[in-house]
This record gives sequence, C-alpha cells and structure tokens, in this order.
Amino acid sequence: MQHEETIPYLIWDLLITLSATLVALFIPLELVLGVYEHPALVYADGMITLLFFADIFLNFRRPLTIKRRVIRNPRVLARHYLKRWFIIDLLAAIPFSLLFEITPLLLLRLSKLARVMHLMHQWRQSKVHSLAIIRLVSFIFWLGLTAHWLACGWLALRGIPANATRSTSYLGALYWCVTTLTTVGYGDVTPSTPVEMVYTMLVMILGVAVYGYVIGNVANLLTNLDLAKAHYLANMERISTFLNYRHVPLTLQRRVYDYYAYLWENRLGYDESSVLAELPTSLRTEVSLVLKRDFIHKVPFFQGASQDLIRDIALELQPVIFIPRDYVCRAGEIGHQMYFISHGTVEVVSADGETIYATLTDGDFFGEIALLHSQPRTASIRALDYCDLYALNKETFERVLGHYPDFAKHVHEMAQKRRESRQ
Amino acid sequence: MQHEETIPYLIWDLLITLSATLVALFIPLELVLGVYEHPALVYADGMITLLFFADIFLNFRRPLTIKRRVIRNPRVLARHYLKRWFIIDLLAAIPFSLLFEITPLLLLRLSKLARVMHLMHQWRQSKVHSLAIIRLVSFIFWLGLTAHWLACGWLALRGIPANATRSTSYLGALYWCVTTLTTVGYGDVTPSTPVEMVYTMLVMILGVAVYGYVIGNVANLLTNLDLAKAHYLANMERISTFLNYRHVPLTLQRRVYDYYAYLWENRLGYDESSVLAELPTSLRTEVSLVLKRDFIHKVPFFQGASQDLIRDIALELQPVIFIPRDYVCRAGEIGHQMYFISHGTVEVVSADGETIYATLTDGDFFGEIALLHSQPRTASIRALDYCDLYALNKETFERVLGHYPDFAKHVHEMAQKRRESRQ
Amino acid sequence: MQHEETIPYLIWDLLITLSATLVALFIPLELVLGVYEHPALVYADGMITLLFFADIFLNFRRPLTIKRRVIRNPRVLARHYLKRWFIIDLLAAIPFSLLFEITPLLLLRLSKLARVMHLMHQWRQSKVHSLAIIRLVSFIFWLGLTAHWLACGWLALRGIPANATRSTSYLGALYWCVTTLTTVGYGDVTPSTPVEMVYTMLVMILGVAVYGYVIGNVANLLTNLDLAKAHYLANMERISTFLNYRHVPLTLQRRVYDYYAYLWENRLGYDESSVLAELPTSLRTEVSLVLKRDFIHKVPFFQGASQDLIRDIALELQPVIFIPRDYVCRAGEIGHQMYFISHGTVEVVSADGETIYATLTDGDFFGEIALLHSQPRTASIRALDYCDLYALNKETFERVLGHYPDFAKHVHEMAQKRRESRQ
Amino acid sequence: MQHEETIPYLIWDLLITLSATLVALFIPLELVLGVYEHPALVYADGMITLLFFADIFLNFRRPLTIKRRVIRNPRVLARHYLKRWFIIDLLAAIPFSLLFEITPLLLLRLSKLARVMHLMHQWRQSKVHSLAIIRLVSFIFWLGLTAHWLACGWLALRGIPANATRSTSYLGALYWCVTTLTTVGYGDVTPSTPVEMVYTMLVMILGVAVYGYVIGNVANLLTNLDLAKAHYLANMERISTFLNYRHVPLTLQRRVYDYYAYLWENRLGYDESSVLAELPTSLRTEVSLVLKRDFIHKVPFFQGASQDLIRDIALELQPVIFIPRDYVCRAGEIGHQMYFISHGTVEVVSADGETIYATLTDGDFFGEIALLHSQPRTASIRALDYCDLYALNKETFERVLGHYPDFAKHVHEMAQKRRESRQ
Repeated sequence: MQHEETIPYLIWDLLITLSATLVALFIPLELVLGVYEHPALVYADGMITLLFFADIFLNFRRPLTIKRRVIRNPRVLARHYLKRWFIIDLLAAIPFSLLFEITPLLLLRLSKLARVMHLMHQWRQSKVHSLAIIRLVSFIFWLGLTAHWLACGWLALRGIPANATRSTSYLGALYWCVTTLTTVGYGDVTPSTPVEMVYTMLVMILGVAVYGYVIGNVANLLTNLDLAKAHYLANMERISTFLNYRHVPLTLQRRVYDYYAYLWENRLGYDESSVLAELPTSLRTEVSLVLKRDFIHKVPFFQGASQDLIRDIALELQPVIFIPRDYVCRAGEIGHQMYFISHGTVEVVSADGETIYATLTDGDFFGEIALLHSQPRTASIRALDYCDLYALNKETFERVLGHYPDFAKHVHEMAQKRRESRQ
Repeated sequence: MQHEETIPYLIWDLLITLSATLVALFIPLELVLGVYEHPALVYADGMITLLFFADIFLNFRRPLTIKRRVIRNPRVLARHYLKRWFIIDLLAAIPFSLLFEITPLLLLRLSKLARVMHLMHQWRQSKVHSLAIIRLVSFIFWLGLTAHWLACGWLALRGIPANATRSTSYLGALYWCVTTLTTVGYGDVTPSTPVEMVYTMLVMILGVAVYGYVIGNVANLLTNLDLAKAHYLANMERISTFLNYRHVPLTLQRRVYDYYAYLWENRLGYDESSVLAELPTSLRTEVSLVLKRDFIHKVPFFQGASQDLIRDIALELQPVIFIPRDYVCRAGEIGHQMYFISHGTVEVVSADGETIYATLTDGDFFGEIALLHSQPRTASIRALDYCDLYALNKETFERVLGHYPDFAKHVHEMAQKRRESRQ
Repeated sequence: MQHEETIPYLIWDLLITLSATLVALFIPLELVLGVYEHPALVYADGMITLLFFADIFLNFRRPLTIKRRVIRNPRVLARHYLKRWFIIDLLAAIPFSLLFEITPLLLLRLSKLARVMHLMHQWRQSKVHSLAIIRLVSFIFWLGLTAHWLACGWLALRGIPANATRSTSYLGALYWCVTTLTTVGYGDVTPSTPVEMVYTMLVMILGVAVYGYVIGNVANLLTNLDLAKAHYLANMERISTFLNYRHVPLTLQRRVYDYYAYLWENRLGYDESSVLAELPTSLRTEVSLVLKRDFIHKVPFFQGASQDLIRDIALELQPVIFIPRDYVCRAGEIGHQMYFISHGTVEVVSADGETIYATLTDGDFFGEIALLHSQPRTASIRALDYCDLYALNKETFERVLGHYPDFAKHVHEMAQKRRESRQ
Repeated sequence: MQHEETIPYLIWDLLITLSATLVALFIPLELVLGVYEHPALVYADGMITLLFFADIFLNFRRPLTIKRRVIRNPRVLARHYLKRWFIIDLLAAIPFSLLFEITPLLLLRLSKLARVMHLMHQWRQSKVHSLAIIRLVSFIFWLGLTAHWLACGWLALRGIPANATRSTSYLGALYWCVTTLTTVGYGDVTPSTPVEMVYTMLVMILGVAVYGYVIGNVANLLTNLDLAKAHYLANMERISTFLNYRHVPLTLQRRVYDYYAYLWENRLGYDESSVLAELPTSLRTEVSLVLKRDFIHKVPFFQGASQDLIRDIALELQPVIFIPRDYVCRAGEIGHQMYFISHGTVEVVSADGETIYATLTDGDFFGEIALLHSQPRTASIRALDYCDLYALNKETFERVLGHYPDFAKHVHEMAQKRRESRQ
C-alpha cells in the first residue's frame, strides 16, 4: 500500500529485524554466561555494527509515504529522520562496549528493537487480511524474547550450578521460565532466596497477563474467523424458526434454504448493488463496465454500440436472481423489462409450459420485443437452474435509446427480425 | 445439502474415518511399544489395506457436487480425483512397511488423516445448525489424537521402566501428558534430561494454545447460544429504562412488557413481513400461500374464488397484532380495512361496548361492509386475547375485485346478506 | 411472568430444591463413608420422603401456564403431569433403599435433581434481567455438587487412611479435587494406582471445560455489562475522532460532548419516538397520554379540553431538545410550531437578546400566537439550560382545531388576551 | 465533566485514596505481625486521623453536581452528606483502637475503602476514553489489596516460623498466595492443617474467578481496541470477496482498495454528514461554520459576504470525494453545482484533456459560471490527487442569492469578469 515498500526495502527491513533479534538474543547471554569468547560471535558483532551504520545512512535518503503522498525531497527526509530515529539508531550502531570496555553498555544495542517494533507496527497497519494472525505472530515474537530475557535473569540470580555446562544451565532456566509462564508449575525448580521469590512472583503475574492476551486473541480470532458465516447462519436460523413456527411444509422450507445456500455459496451473501452504491461515480462506472461488458459484448444486439452506450447500459442493469422452475416472465403479460443472462440457463416455453421453443444461456438476452411495443410477451421464460440475470427497465431502455438515435434504429430492426422468425 | 451425500456414502465415509483413526492410534503404539505382535492387529491392518484400496476405486466413480451441480461424468470425476487425492490415498493404502520391512514406513498410512480432515471440513461446511458444537467435537478428536501421540513421544524418550508393563507405562505417559496440557502440573513426573525438558516445554506451550482455543470456543458458543434472547432482552431493557425514566405507571409498563413477551414467545421477535420481503417473488408467493391459504379457505366468502385470486390476496395480506381489550375498529369510524383472524378471538360489540353481538375466532373475517360502501362501521370489534390478524387494505381489495369481476359480484351479494342479518 | 408463580408455589419450589440438594450432598457421603448411622440424618430422610410424596400430590393439581393461558382443568393437568414428571418424582419419593435394604438404591433419589434442573431452567426463562448472573449462580450450584461427587469418588477409590477421621479424609479429598479442578496442582496429593490416574485425568479435563465455561461466562458478562455504555462511548469516539481530525476548537468540542452526555445521562441515549413507534396503536396512545397528560393539564390553555382532544394532541407532540443558550425561536421569524416545556427553563427575550420579558419553565407553553395568524414571532425564546420541549406543528394544530370547533374558539380568545398583555 | 472536579479537589481525593490504601496495607500487617512498634507508623496513623477528620469537614461544604446542575447550598450539601457518607467517614476517622486499646478495632478504619470505591466509580463514570484500561487498573488495585490480605491471613493461620524474620515470613506468605492465585501451584508450600486446606481452597476458587475476570477483560479490551479497524477490514473483505468472485482485474481492484484506504486514513471511515445530522440545530450550525468558514474566507468571491450568508452557505455545502484522475465535471456538460476545494488539487483542462489551463488547490472554487447561466461548462476539471470538495447545489445557490440581493449582484459581476478572462 505504501510506495516505498518495494522489494529491496522490504528485504533490508527483514535483515535489520533479523540482526536486531540476534542482538536481543545474544547480548543477555553474553552478560550472564559470557558467550562472546567465541570468535564467530565477535565477528557477527562487527557485521551488525556495519549493518546498523549502513541503515542510518540509508534512512537519510529513503522515501517516505505520508498521507498517501511520497516524499523524496532529501532535505525533508533528513529532517524527518533526524527528529525521530537518528539518535536511537546511533545508540544501537556505535559499539560502546568495545570503546569503553564496559560489557553492560552492550544493552544500548537493544534500542534497535524500538525500530523493529515500529517496522512491525507499520506492517500491521498496511495489511488488510488476517490481522489477528499477524498480531499473534508478533506477540509470539515478543513473548519468545521476553521468555529468553526472563531465563537469563533467572540464571543471573541463581548462578550456574557447579556440575552443569552453560548450555544445560540456560536450558534449565528456560525450562523453569516456561513452566511458570504457562502456569503448569511442576515445582521441580522453585525459588529459594527472597529475591528469587519476588522474581518468581513477577514471572507468574506476567504469565497471567500472557494467558489473558493469548486467550483474548484466540477468542477474537475465532469470532472473526467465520463472522460472515455466523451472520449467514443467524439469518438461516431466523428464517428456519419462522417457517417452523408457521408450519410451512418441509419441501418448501428446503427450497427456501436452498435459495439462501445458493446466495451464500456464490456471492457470500453480499449484494452487488450495495457494493457498487458505496463507490464514487468513476469507480462505479468502471467496475460496472468490467462486470457487464463481457456479456454485453456477447449479445449480437449490442455489437455495433458505442463505448458510451455500453457504459450507460452497464450502470443501469440491475442484478436479479431466479430459482429453478421460476418463471422470469409469462406469455401474455405486459413486459416492462428485458433480461441479460449473466449466469444460468432459461427455457423459452409456450404459455401452457408444454412446448419448449429454445434454451438460452450465458450471454443471451430476451424480452426486448415487449419493451419496444408494449405488447404482451409472446412466450414464457422459465429458469432451468439458479439464474443470475441482469434486468433492464423499460424506462431506462427508452432513455438510453433517446440518447443514441442510431442505435435505436438498429434495435428496432433486430426486434422486427426476431418477431418474424418466431411467428 | 450435497446430492452425493446419500446414506451409503455417509456410512462409507464414517468407516474410512474410523479406520484412519484406528491407524492413527495404533501406529505410534506399534513404533514405541511394538504392539503388532498381537495377531488381531496384524489382521486388522490387512483389512484396512483392503478398505483403503476400495476407497480409491470408489473415489474414481463417486459423483461430486460443485457449485450446486452434480457431476457424474466418470472422466471428469477421475481427472478431478487424480489431481487431488489419488497420491495421498495411494500412500495410505500401500503396505510399504510390509513390502520393505521397515516399520517407520507405517507412518505413511497417517496421510489418510488428511482425508479425514477434508471430510470433517465438508461436514462442517454443509451443516447449518450448531456449528460451534461440531467445531468443538472435531477439536476434541484432534486433541485426543495429539495427546496420544505426545504420550507415545514421551514413552519413546523415556523408555519403558524396568518394573512396568507396556499398558501401565503408556498410561503413565498419557497421565503426564494430560497433567501438562491441562496446566495442572502436579510435578510427580518431571523431565530429567535436556531432550525431555525441550519436549516438555513444547507440550506446555501447546497446552496454552489448547486452552486458548477451548476457552475461545466456549466463549463463542455461549455468546451465540442465546444471541436471539440477548437481543430480545437488550430491547426490553431499553424499553424498561425509558418507561422507568418517564415514570410510566407499573400496570401500563406490565402491559407493554406483556406485549413484547407475547411477540417473543410466539414468533421469537421475528417479523413475518421482513422474512417474506427477502425472498424472490416465486418463493414469496408460495410461502404466502401456505401461510394464508388455510384460513382463507375457511372463510365461506372465498370458497368460490379461483386459485389466482387467492394467491393475489395472500400476497397482499398484512399481519397485524392486537393486544387484549384493544379495539380493532370502532362503530361509527369510516373503515379502510377488512380483517382475517389468523389466531385469536374478537368480540363484535355495540358502540358503547356493552352489548356483545357475536364472538369471532380463527378463520373468521370482518369489516368487509365498510370496504364496499365507505359507510361507517356498524359495530365495534374488540380483541379478547392477543390476536394475530391479517389486514386487507381497501385499495388492494378494490384492485383485486377489479381483476376478478365474477368474484366482485359474489362478494357484493355476501355483504348484502350479512348487513340484512345484522339490522 | 407466569400466573402460577405465586409466592406459596415459589416457596414450595425452593423447599423442593433445597431438599433435593441435601439429598444430592448426603447420599454419596453415605455410600462412601456411611454417615447414616447418625439418627438426625435418618430422621431427615423420612421427612424428605414425605416432602417428595407431597410434591407428587401437589403437582396433580398445580395450574400451569402454556402459551400465555393458565390451565386449571384438573384432568388436563393430571395427564400433563403423568406424561412428564410423575415417574421421575415417584422414583425419587419411594424409599427403595429401606424397602429392599440395598444402600446403592439411594441413588434413585438423585432423579429429583432433574426436577431441580427443570425449575432452574424455568426461572431462567422467566427472568428478563441479569441473565448471565443467574446462569453463573446455577453453574456454581452444579459445579459445587460435581466437586462434592468427585471428592466422594476419590475417597471411594483411595479409601479412608488409617489415622484419619471421616471428616478430615473427606476434606482431603475435596482439597485434592479443588486443587486439580482449578489447575493449581500443588502435587502434594497425586494418584498412585492406574485407576486413580484415569480418574485424575478425567477430573483434569473436566477442569479445563469448567475453566472455559467460567471464563466464557465472565467475558460474556463483562461484554453485556456495559453494552449500552459501550455503544455510547463508541459513538463519542466516532464524533471525537471526526472533530479532532477537522480541528474543531476545544470549547466547541466540549459543548458537543456535553450535549451527548446530557442525552446519555437523562435518557440513556434512547429516543422516545423510536420506543413509541414500536408499540401497537392502543399502547402507544396510552403511553403517550401518560407521558404528556401531566404537563398538558398544567397548561391553563388546555384545561377545558375534552379527553379525546388531549389524546389526539398527546400522540402528535414531537420531543425536541435545546442546549443552553440556544434560541428556540427568534423574534421576527415566521413561526410554524408551538412548544410545551416538558423539562427545563427558557427566557422570553427581545429581538436583540437584551431585555428579558419573562422566564418560562416546566408546564409552560409558548409560540401559539404565530401559529394562529402566520405573523412573525413577537419575541425570541432562549434556552437557559438543557430543555426537553414538545413541539406541536402548525399543520397538526390546525387539524386538531378543525376536529374540535369549541376548543378552537377557546384557543383564539386565549391568544388574543396574551397578545394584548405583551404589547 | 463535573464542575466540582477542579484540580484541588482532585488532589485531595488522590490524597484520601492514597492514605486509605496505606491504611488497608498496614492494618492487617499490624494485626498479624505487630508492625506498629515502629514510631514512623504511629506518627503516620496520627496524620491519617487528622486527614480523615479534615475530609469530613470538607465534605460538608463541597459542591456537588447532580443531574448536570451544581449544588452549592450548604444546607442541601450537609443533608446529602449526613445521609450518605458521614457515618462511614466518622468510623474511619475516630481512632477507636487507641480509645479502647483494642487493636482489632483498627479494622473500622477500612471503611474508608468504601469511599475509595465510590471515588473510583465516579472517575470511571466521568471518563469517556479507555474505559477498559481504567477498569483493569482499578481491578489490579483491588486484586493487589486482596492478595495482601490473603497473605496476611495465611500468616495468621501459619504463624511466623521460628527461624524467619517478619519480612521474610510475609514474603513467603505473599509468594504462596501469588503461586496459588495464578494457578501455578509449585507445591513447595502446601497447607498442612484442615483450616489451612479450607483457606487454600477458597484462595484457589478466587484464583479461577480472578482468571476469568482478567481474561474476560483482556478479550473485551482486544475486541474494542480495534473495533473501528475491524469494521473497516470486514468491509474491505466483503468488497474484496465480491471483486474476486466477479473476476474484476487486479489494477481496478487496487484502485478500489486505495479509495477505501484513503477514506479510512483520513476520516477513519466516518462521514461528516452523518455526524452533523445528529447534532441539534445550533451546534450543527456552529460546527459547520468552523469546518467551512476557513476556506470560505479564502475565496475572494465571499469576502464581502455577511456572517449570516456564510452560515447559510456553510450549512448547505455537501462533502464529496474525487479520486485521482476523476473528472469532477466535463466541458460541455450542463453544470448544476459549484465546488469549493477543501483539500486536494484539481486541473482545469480543455475538453480533450490535453491543454491544462490552470491548477486549483485548497481554498479555490470553480463551476460558478454554469450555475448562473445554465450554460455548458467551459472547461473540464480533473482531480490530480484525492480531493475533498464541498459541492454547492444550483437550487441552494439560487435560494441563498434570493435572500441576499446585494451579494447576488456581487457574484454576478465576479462571474462576468472570470468568463471574460477565460475567453
């Protein structure tokens, strides 16, 4: 959604997130267990210093999107960056602990996590789908980091047992931490000094909050997961209660349910008209055109029509649904609408429903004769399966014909031919 | 809802689900404890191989419903099946472990669970009622399997204690697993090696997720359980707050509540008109006819009427409710509606409400005289209990009479007779 | 809500509930610990037998409400009872354990709990308020019974320790049960045999379900607790976001919030018109009359009016709200409405707002002159505090005057006098 | 929201809350551990006695807001206070324990907590934002106090171990209490006597309730946190489902999403018109004026207009949105509206869209010529970016001109000049 979020920037952000995460994992370990003796980690630390400095230089020139406008002016970008993230990024980049040879200064590096938090927030903002899942993932990320820090804290309080390696003592601390946070509490590792007791209490209380958050999120997720289906089901239940209360026969009930199931499966219960109505004029025109142009073009009738006419017609077509065996119109009725078949099959039948003159399907149209002459329908039209039709009103049709006299003539000729071929 | 879900197919699907479940239960046991020495299980394994092969052959020819159309074309069915499930079903059917004499190949059989998952998903999709309960049941199914696998994993890590039988060691492992998943955590069985610790942590974290899911579902279930009643109660509270705030006397308040309670108990607060309005024309006509035909036929007045007339009338009747002691109409007023009694009892009384001329009940009608002549009502009509009436508007009535001249004459005669009998 | 729920029946039902509860508590204890040696309990058992038989006889004659009609016909009542509850009640009443001297037959008494369940369900149905709390209470009742039974089961499995009294062993079992159900799981009491392990697992799983239910209910309760306030706050947030986004000055914002706070505090945000619109005509008339009659009667203007006129006026008055310092109407404007002050104070001021002619308050009316002559307002009216007024439209006013010629004359004279006194 | 909540009163209330909290913390400690030997605490007790008496005297005169009216009449205030809080405050203020030398009488002081509860309730009532967070904070406050009291109770039951100081025994008791309430239940501290068991069971059950409350609140908080965003996302999903189902091309889909994203980011999806429609007339006028005055004044056209005219215009302007590349109006069309640019940029282009005559931005207006003469638009107007315009209808425009003849003349001259400059 944001213009600056091109792929290279995204990869760079992921790289920064990854390295900040590594820093967040290794610094507490270094402070508690002194893991930095290992040359690979010293090397990695150097790399990260470089990376963080590169990030600072990049941020001075990186375009920003504010209020849907991309800002590329370097001066504005620099001022924006200096005012917000520069100092934090600098604190994270400069290797203070090497400069002053004080290990706890490593903690300043953790300030880069603020940046990670900001990036995650941005991703969450720009996403439209599966927000709850993104929230859960970012929650698990932070919870994992927290559990790691808590385990390191426990190690710092307890010290490393005499007969244990560094890795097993860390594992033990993490095990204690998870046991407590998940409220399982085996009781095989328990605090023994007052300080440890206070620490344990804090972890326990944090555990309750974590639980609350997890459960709240899952409940939220489940609620939203099938919100659309839940609405559909609630509506079905409403109808089913009513039909049962009024003793409507089961076969008729089944047809009603079938109709709603069709609506649900094919459009998820959402109405084309209501979606279009919300859009501003220009978008409404374009979407209408896209939806209806394809089958308007299939109609021989409209093949000589101008683009403007097709747009006008597209905006005026109303979606209607017929269920199997429904009569769209009956022979003898005075018609007021013509129909385009968007999806489905209909039969042209005689007034008594016995003789089938023709079968029409996607892209066909019918009912135009009655519109021209206000004479009764010459045949009945019966839906064979669920039919999505577009209806064109007589009034609209006449208005459109009025605007396009050439096309009116063409239509007139077509209708004449058709009538002759049927008689 | 789906045509291919006939009873035999349903039984077959249940059989497949059952055997896949058995496979999922016994394979891990076999791998950890070596239970397949038992001849019954070897025998069952053979049966399941046959069953799974039979399922493959069946699936090549089994009709499918896609987008509400049943597909029976064998070629289309075969192609559809080959593209989707064939390989998975084959992996589950072929007894690789016997062929290659490698026990862990038994795990390939578990691929059949993917099929079970798909079946469950289908059932859930096609059900309209009690979705949350179905979700809970399928959740318990998978949770049970997971707990079983976790227990087997624990056994595999720990080994069987020297002084324990296979069944008690399995029971012990399951006990540990349940204790941990439910976060009870007695602490009488705790991990002792680093690998066990990691395993335990994973189980604990799974336990939190399980909790979240259970609680989220239960909360969801409870919310939806009485959603309809909750809406009713919220409305009652709204009204009660208003009436109390405005100091409406308690007796009048009680009558208002009584009215809403009647609506709730008899129609669950759902309005006939709104349900009908949502339906497409043909269904609306049929439902209207079913609802109103019965008592229209009871009316002597309509007994000579054509089916078309009754359909037209049925579509036009508006449901109205009167509460006990309400006047439906008063003597002397100019009437604009006739009424059919759908349910309830009314009294025909004199203008002063003293003399009772008649009592009318289900299937009776009244008020037709004023409609014909625009003269004042000759008597008052008072509801004796809660009355569900259908009202027929003068305008509609006249339009209907206009369409059916024969019937208009019949009505005229009837009204004349009635007036004479009352004078 | 139900006619048969008179106080004596309610007390009887409570008595039955209480004794069934006692039975449910003592029977498992008797079976596990043999408490019936105590003469008081044997005595109580006799009493309960009598009570349960009395309940059977009572139920044959107790009136029922079905579909809002009270049934008192003894034959119908007896048939209804015989078909539904008679056998269950009989099983609970007959002291089988004494007759056959088999203690476990005592369990048959527990069938009376089905009746308790039914009574609780009925109470829940008939209550309109605090449904969630009633559900929680009944849940705690059943959970308490379940915990008791689970503790008795644990005792039965474990037996009474050698050095413990019956009461301390029961307490220990209950303690274990609560520890496990609440998932605390200290681990100071743990299962030692396979049967106990299976029993423990069942209790743990029940604990998870209990948790889910408690939390789901609490979440539900909290959600519904302030649903009305939540809607109010959501609306306020919507407005506040808009006003802030558009930089509306804080003093004006505060006035807008104040207006909504007034609406909220005085009517809970519910609109009089919408509540009235939902009611059937007769109730609407009566409620309107009650709401507006009091202050209509205060108006000297209406004191000679007939009851019919006041009813007509009451139905037509529209509630309107003015905020402090608002002008209800301004001198020189052509007025189209007269106003009745339902609640609040207004000032009659000169066109320039300087001179205050009069102060009007609850029960006063103004604006009637302009209605009669279509001449400009002779003075401005300014609200002093939040004012609930009822407005009467010129058109309505004229229609009412048309129906009541005598009253029209009276109004005319009044208006004339007033105009003179002001000039 | 309440007039008496001025800063000094707020500070006083905080002081009272703080001292009542201290009292609630130290009194149980004194009763269990006898901490009052320490002179600082005795001194603090004296101070609190004074403070509580001062609070009583203050409350006699402190103004109250009841139903949005401030009450300052000392007699009414005194009566109100005597009837409600006087006795409770007196019980808390009088140092009974010193008077009668009975330490448990200290507990009477805790009655002041009722006052704290009332204050918290008031704060919660008067707050509009972040209600759930306030509820959580007050919940944590009460939970903290409860945990403290439970720990003191546990200490009282257990007594102080021989080898422990008072502070470590209190810490141990609190540790036990937190372990149990959070359902972690290590099992390193367990009850040993029956009384302790009962106490433990109560704490465990309280723990479940606490959990339910925490989780219910968190779930509630999460649900409400992004309710607005959830609605937005649900709508987006609805639209996205529809567009995908109908195979609308991705580029057009992206434009539709972009439009909604713009709406969301700039107005949070709330419509100006709907917010204004809810307000009473006077507020609607003022807010309209504030929103539209600024840019109306920028328009040279309106600079000579009277305040009344600008108010009338402001009320009639309708907000409309155009998306980038939309045509607001096209050359040759008969125009019916003039537009004010509230935010955005438009181009005045030739009929073929090639030549750009001018670029208009915030505060500019266009389209007034067509309104005056009903002649076709002389140029097309195309949106360059998302444009918030206000449209003024021809009908409204003419009505406004009719009311202000002087201004009508001025407008006429302006339009004439402009047309000349363009030709």
